[in-house]
Amino acid sequence: MRLLLILLITWGNVVQLQSQSQEKDAFFIRSIYDHNLTQGACYDWLMVLSEKIGARLSGSEAYDQAVDFTSKSLLEIGVDTVYTQPSEVDYWIRGNQTSVEVELENGKIWSLNCLALGRSIGNGNTPISGEIIEVQTLQEVAKLGRDQIEGKIVFYNRPMDATQIRTFNAYGGAVDQRVYGASTASEYGAVAALVRSMTTRNDDVPHTGTMAYAEGVEPIPGIAISTNDANRLSKMLFQGPVEASIISDSYDGGKRNSDNVIAEIKGSEFPDEIILVGGHLDSWDVGGGAHDDGSGCVHAMQVIHTLQALNYKPKRTIRCVLFANEENGLAGAREYARVSNLRNEYHLAAIESDAGGFSPRGFSVDGHPEVLNRYAKIMSERIEKYLAPYGLMMTTGGSGADINPLKSQMGILIGLRPDSQRYFDYHHTENDRIEAVNPRELQLGAAAMTSLVFLIDQYGLN
Amino acid sequence: MRLLLILLITWGNVVQLQSQSQEKDAFFIRSIYDHNLTQGACYDWLMVLSEKIGARLSGSEAYDQAVDFTSKSLLEIGVDTVYTQPSEVDYWIRGNQTSVEVELENGKIWSLNCLALGRSIGNGNTPISGEIIEVQTLQEVAKLGRDQIEGKIVFYNRPMDATQIRTFNAYGGAVDQRVYGASTASEYGAVAALVRSMTTRNDDVPHTGTMAYAEGVEPIPGIAISTNDANRLSKMLFQGPVEASIISDSYDGGKRNSDNVIAEIKGSEFPDEIILVGGHLDSWDVGGGAHDDGSGCVHAMQVIHTLQALNYKPKRTIRCVLFANEENGLAGAREYARVSNLRNEYHLAAIESDAGGFSPRGFSVDGHPEVLNRYAKIMSERIEKYLAPYGLMMTTGGSGADINPLKSQMGILIGLRPDSQRYFDYHHTENDRIEAVNPRELQLGAAAMTSLVFLIDQYGLN
Repeated sequence: MRLLLILLITWGNVVQLQSQSQEKDAFFIRSIYDHNLTQGACYDWLMVLSEKIGARLSGSEAYDQAVDFTSKSLLEIGVDTVYTQPSEVDYWIRGNQTSVEVELENGKIWSLNCLALGRSIGNGNTPISGEIIEVQTLQEVAKLGRDQIEGKIVFYNRPMDATQIRTFNAYGGAVDQRVYGASTASEYGAVAALVRSMTTRNDDVPHTGTMAYAEGVEPIPGIAISTNDANRLSKMLFQGPVEASIISDSYDGGKRNSDNVIAEIKGSEFPDEIILVGGHLDSWDVGGGAHDDGSGCVHAMQVIHTLQALNYKPKRTIRCVLFANEENGLAGAREYARVSNLRNEYHLAAIESDAGGFSPRGFSVDGHPEVLNRYAKIMSERIEKYLAPYGLMMTTGGSGADINPLKSQMGILIGLRPDSQRYFDYHHTENDRIEAVNPRELQLGAAAMTSLVFLIDQYGLN
Repeated sequence: MRLLLILLITWGNVVQLQSQSQEKDAFFIRSIYDHNLTQGACYDWLMVLSEKIGARLSGSEAYDQAVDFTSKSLLEIGVDTVYTQPSEVDYWIRGNQTSVEVELENGKIWSLNCLALGRSIGNGNTPISGEIIEVQTLQEVAKLGRDQIEGKIVFYNRPMDATQIRTFNAYGGAVDQRVYGASTASEYGAVAALVRSMTTRNDDVPHTGTMAYAEGVEPIPGIAISTNDANRLSKMLFQGPVEASIISDSYDGGKRNSDNVIAEIKGSEFPDEIILVGGHLDSWDVGGGAHDDGSGCVHAMQVIHTLQALNYKPKRTIRCVLFANEENGLAGAREYARVSNLRNEYHLAAIESDAGGFSPRGFSVDGHPEVLNRYAKIMSERIEKYLAPYGLMMTTGGSGADINPLKSQMGILIGLRPDSQRYFDYHHTENDRIEAVNPRELQLGAAAMTSLVFLIDQYGLN
């Protein structure tokens, strides 16, 4: 009886201690949100990145300015170390002119809203002319074959599927046209490829983005046209043949160096367990890269800022990594993983923000199946318990392109999931600027990431 | 043994039937989303409401145009009946001029960004001058008393609390200054009241909104100033006394008629159980009332449109109500409830959308405590089961100002909850226009409402 009593009292104490520690954790998370919403620096940093520095393709001068600015800002926050890590990237130069022109029946010239796709090889100043042939898929080009394709301009016009609730799924279902369209068309003798812009919106704004040529394929220009122009062109093609004249003087700019930016606070108890927060510092060469991925960079920087401001001493090592070259090669991510593996590092967790600075809705968790089996449920329950009051939940799914190479270290990979509805209104366009970012939405994203870092730092993955 | 077998088989059939019906329901909800995201009309309607008709204060000609447009559109969709329901509203006229001017040390005049508050009584063309006294609360005015307040211009400058995750809570904690500020100031002899605009954003845009004078109080002008100007003014007051000169020629425009718009599809099985969907058709007299509450109106109309397009025959009566005069009197809502009670109607459920056309995050459910006790849990589970895949969840809390008077009918009251972060960037300003509304976010709100209507129509509240 006395033993039972002792056990009951002990159990009572454990429960009480547990609930005290829960309250303390919830209170700290609340203070993370308070700090972000009232003293967060991320919007001001983003203003510099997207408006003062602006577009910052890997290898460009602007990219190097972004490296300087973020390194200095991280140093000012007060971290144990900040350094840059070189990586060799393929530099691409848009050139001075991209045009797609169609002569209308009345003799007037219709000049389409267009942007050369990233890594597209142009044709200098010699116009390319040809009849336009509309297709919906890469497979259709193969099916039409050289007979129908040779000498023509292939126009890929399969829209993103508007019925997808998460717009990234719609993007995933359409982007093969942009990435492989020109290469596939070239295999069958086409002279150029036009691609419907990757957005569900009907407007006049062309969207660039990466493309690739398969080995041994003759490079032909790949050019994005706006969705309004794609719709108009498709209607014209329905009525009869259409010829276009294309000029594009973009070209391969050779190899250049581009740095990752790395800042770190050493852990006090488990310094060898790294929790990475990151985004990619490069952007396309149009717009300001405000959502893609200036937001992700300032999210990651804000995690460090908030933990320092709240005088939090992490048990584990918190590392902020701003990756080079995500948009056109992933050289920064590969180099980071290579060096990390060489040093036998262990990333317990890596969290990337690369889906915009919109209102956060949760996290998607990825990893080796064994890791997911062991930890996904616990992680989901912890997020539910502490972060549901902030509108966050966990799903499984992809994390981020830059942290994906770390999967073999058998830690957990996490992507911040902001609301995705507006992302492809701005993605890879002139309009991806600070005006498209709401300060509170941005701050809430940083608070969400910081809170998750805190929970993982406190409890590990268990 | 055989009995057990029979029981098991029967049970198996029940489970199978249940799961078949679940699948059917999930499939129908998916088709609701598909329709909204590909053929929804709500964005086009909103374009007319906010841009062609524009600001539509109750009693104005524009309001009557909005009644015509929405009535005709609902008729075109194909409902059993559309009619208007008159209500008598207090019409308010902003006049031609509102200015707040401060003479600076260098002799220059600083003209503040300002807007008269709705229902404020101006001073014709005679300027009012006085020293400005800054306060944070209504209570502070009472504490300072007539000695300190008489002859002065009271400046209410308590900001909305940025640490609230849901911005409506921050609004609720600050809006007493706008509603009662001028009246309270007048009680202690002030000559005018300035109120910091209701937004967490620091910018130059003044926000109007309703105010009221307590009975017997001498009306003095109540004027909103932008948050940037409030901050600047506060800094100046810290350095020394500041005088302002105010002109405002707004006035009471007397009684006018303003109609509710009501459209209905009769239920096939339970016609006496009404499921109401609604928003308010009036807006303030600035901007286009795109989020507030054009979005709510087109959401409600889209519910009918989608159910008709999918050839859905409701068991219960679905009624779309667009209310008059929510912004400055709630006369439309009161009249609707009065007539409904007179007819002994029963609103099984009423769903209002009046929190903007942003990405929907769920529903808040309200009702008589007995109703909530009985049905809230079931409702929450059903929303979780069918609508969590669309990012929706249920919370308890306020529903909507226009449906609130229906609580006594002992049905359930529901508010659509869109993401609230951007709402007070636009609320009651010149900027509440179609550009601030993302088509997909708007369509998803309509789909969320339609799906919930479908579930309530299928299962009632049980």
